Amino acid sequence: MDGENEPYVISDLNASLPAAAAALSAEDRAGLVNALKDKLQSLAGQHADVLETLSPNVRKRVEFLRGIQSQHDEIEAKFFEERVALEAKYQKLYEPLYTKRYEIVNGEVEVDGVSDEQTSDDTAEGKEPVAKGVPEFWLTAMKTNEVLSEEIQERDEAALKYLKDIKWSRIEDPKGFKLDFFFDTNPFIKNSVLTKTYHMVDEDDLILEKAIGTEIEWYPGKNLTQKILKKKPKKGSKNTKLITKTEDCESFFNFFDPPQVPEDDEDIDEDTAEELQGQMEHDYDIGTTIRDKIIPHAVSWFTGEAVQGEDFANLGDDEDDDDKDDDDEEEDEDEEGESKPARKLGLQLTSNMFRYGN
Amino acid sequence: MDGENEPYVISDLNASLPAAAAALSAEDRAGLVNALKDKLQSLAGQHADVLETLSPNVRKRVEFLRGIQSQHDEIEAKFFEERVALEAKYQKLYEPLYTKRYEIVNGEVEVDGVSDEQTSDDTAEGKEPVAKGVPEFWLTAMKTNEVLSEEIQERDEAALKYLKDIKWSRIEDPKGFKLDFFFDTNPFIKNSVLTKTYHMVDEDDLILEKAIGTEIEWYPGKNLTQKILKKKPKKGSKNTKLITKTEDCESFFNFFDPPQVPEDDEDIDEDTAEELQGQMEHDYDIGTTIRDKIIPHAVSWFTGEAVQGEDFANLGDDEDDDDKDDDDEEEDEDEEGESKPARKLGLQLTSNMFRYGN
Repeated sequence: MDGENEPYVISDLNASLPAAAAALSAEDRAGLVNALKDKLQSLAGQHADVLETLSPNVRKRVEFLRGIQSQHDEIEAKFFEERVALEAKYQKLYEPLYTKRYEIVNGEVEVDGVSDEQTSDDTAEGKEPVAKGVPEFWLTAMKTNEVLSEEIQERDEAALKYLKDIKWSRIEDPKGFKLDFFFDTNPFIKNSVLTKTYHMVDEDDLILEKAIGTEIEWYPGKNLTQKILKKKPKKGSKNTKLITKTEDCESFFNFFDPPQVPEDDEDIDEDTAEELQGQMEHDYDIGTTIRDKIIPHAVSWFTGEAVQGEDFANLGDDEDDDDKDDDDEEEDEDEEGESKPARKLGLQLTSNMFRYGN
Repeated sequence: MDGENEPYVISDLNASLPAAAAALSAEDRAGLVNALKDKLQSLAGQHADVLETLSPNVRKRVEFLRGIQSQHDEIEAKFFEERVALEAKYQKLYEPLYTKRYEIVNGEVEVDGVSDEQTSDDTAEGKEPVAKGVPEFWLTAMKTNEVLSEEIQERDEAALKYLKDIKWSRIEDPKGFKLDFFFDTNPFIKNSVLTKTYHMVDEDDLILEKAIGTEIEWYPGKNLTQKILKKKPKKGSKNTKLITKTEDCESFFNFFDPPQVPEDDEDIDEDTAEELQGQMEHDYDIGTTIRDKIIPHAVSWFTGEAVQGEDFANLGDDEDDDDKDDDDEEEDEDEEGESKPARKLGLQLTSNMFRYGN
């Protein structure tokens, strides 16, 4: 059955929005509510009076149905609770593995079999320092993921290689989750932790209230979200010095300055609304990619195995794979630590926000 | 804290793609793989040799980390299993409520307090038949949802009002889920059940392999996915009769003829790939909206309460809501069967595919 249609991959083309560096003007953002009100009002208006138009007998039936719906929703609330508890139980089980990973990645614990004469492996005549742990572990893991690789600019890499760990946790009041990025001492950022928090409106609905990022304290001249432009003064100007101008630019670190929800009720056009919607979704997509893909499978992203598992299996050599499929399936898993066997391909859906439920 | 920024709603603007009536040509679809191969190859190529470039000591550490990753993935596999079991447990608890709903909606069981003299309520001089159950229950529920209302054309309503029930269930081999639409005897469609099935490639990744719909057996001249055009013959033509031409048109029932994955490996351009990606995501969005929103909360959609809960709360009258928020929160729930208290608003994210996890 599976062989009939060749599955295929469409990777996340929607993720190629530019990093949302530019925030909309306050008025622009503010008016969103109005633009959307109209749209929603027309929908809600159609149905607000549904109950009134019903004959008395039908209305009695609907009232009874509402009681059934309430019973359902009470049970459903327990489902959401249990699902959160289940997730928490497993997060606890993952925790010691994440700790081990941290210790090895950052050279706090050494694995068996590593020779003492590290210097001879890693440096020629002491030119470079001995490699401690796994250098650039998180940077490499993130760069291997397609969604994140589009966010990480070349300039960012010099700072991101100081990442020691990324963790996530649920927050309860308000509901949502947060990501913590732990940095080693570095010449770019004073903060040792950068946090990105997503506040969700509700447990069971996919509604993002707002995203908040740590304000980054850059060392002077090290702000990676700005570029310094030097311009010659206009001809005829008295001033002959170069004019220095800073300009916002694309950077992974804009992730910590996410698009903001509007505070007022003013007019903006639908295009602007749609643009902001796109920016916020993209920002959320980055956050959930880090939470659901990078953090749990960082090693597989570092080695590249996660890419192959996710997008690359079966591409290019269909003939081989058809033969292999049957006999290899069971052996693939966990053999020699191979954590992601090759997979069949299909439409890679743009958002994975509910992998861990919400 | 919540009062500082007014939250707002952006409803699903991305869902306004036209119903994907037109399938792409075979060659167009086929070449998708090539277009995407290039993109992926460049990513994977960068990382295929990560392990080889590592110094022996770092490589040993990474090998150790791969072992940790395998342990993690084994635990994670159990998490996915438990989550599926949890969902199944709750689906069983919902089942009797869905059955009651079905019986009342379709007039198979009467609720207390409905008078015997129904005729006097519902008809004047017997002009119309007595309302049995809750007429147009599923049509109304679906039309109230923004994603679905864009799919349902006026012509479709005459057929959709015969819907008796919609159910969903997981499928195991291949993994995925299916939606069953049960129709009463009607003048449009011979099938009593229309099924839409989504095959997913993997438990833990959001990869759609393909979607399959029941082939609809229309009664003659009743096909709602086609329009019959009558044209006058060209001037000078011998034939003076009107020329009849059928043409595909937008219809909810195109949902059962979803965009297809390509079978071959040929060239298509990126625009076409993106268009197909959009169509498939949109199709999946419709499916998960029915699964996660309509089926569990059909009564709230019928009455319109689900719209208010989802998109409409707090719009328009901020002053009132600010006062109310504090003291009403606990009372709202379940009072007189009110199943969805008003909510704070935020970004309504486009996809809810993982509400029930996958």
